[in-house]
Amino acid sequence: MNNSLESTKQLLDVVKFDSNGLVPAIVQDVESGKVLMMAWMNRESLAMTLEKKVACYWSRSRKELWLKGETSGNMQQVHDVLIDCDGDTLLLKVSQKGGACHVGYHSCFYRKATENGSLEICDTLMFNPEEVYGKKS
Amino acid sequence: MNNSLESTKQLLDVVKFDSNGLVPAIVQDVESGKVLMMAWMNRESLAMTLEKKVACYWSRSRKELWLKGETSGNMQQVHDVLIDCDGDTLLLKVSQKGGACHVGYHSCFYRKATENGSLEICDTLMFNPEEVYGKKS
Repeated sequence: MNNSLESTKQLLDVVKFDSNGLVPAIVQDVESGKVLMMAWMNRESLAMTLEKKVACYWSRSRKELWLKGETSGNMQQVHDVLIDCDGDTLLLKVSQKGGACHVGYHSCFYRKATENGSLEICDTLMFNPEEVYGKKS
Repeated sequence: MNNSLESTKQLLDVVKFDSNGLVPAIVQDVESGKVLMMAWMNRESLAMTLEKKVACYWSRSRKELWLKGETSGNMQQVHDVLIDCDGDTLLLKVSQKGGACHVGYHSCFYRKATENGSLEICDTLMFNPEEVYGKKS
């Protein structure tokens, strides 16, 4: 395998979407390397992400295209899209505006297991979700 | 939410396994921050990973526990296990021996999309898979 062989393949043709037509996308800060979140893409959201260079996912709960940051303003400018050996996982390198997590943290991975298996907070709160998304009634 | 509240919860009780009993685990080099791979865990492989501090996954193709590096020697020493806001994705911070990818690259994400959507190699070949796994007949 070499660069010239690979360069004949298009990313969109290599991606293996699962039985639901989705592929997981890991999202990493392009500068710090911090992993911010994982979300799912269908073919349409991936094509849109590649074209617009802002991250667009498929919301499995709302069953609709999800332009990240549309409500919160916390958009993700996409610098690179990588694909893994099996073609069934993507890695996005992004510039994250504000926090990535809907709970208000910079990263969705804001909890880690301690020695005894319990959880502790390991990230920084960036915003108050009630102010950004509105108070839940 | 604060540290004292979180600390009453155990990681294994918070993880939401999918309908197949699996959870995706993103694997990141603890020092460089490089994302190496994504694999899947069931409850047993996660418990084993937490206990032994070496990465153990569930092989969806072989349908068996998969101690990473058992064949290749490319083990992953686990420093931290983080969980995301929804409890349905894990992030492992590891020390990777050799390459993580069965194709021989350091990371499974060894290809990235160029401006025109084609793929180019963007990682370093660490080993010859035929020497490590044997030649495919």
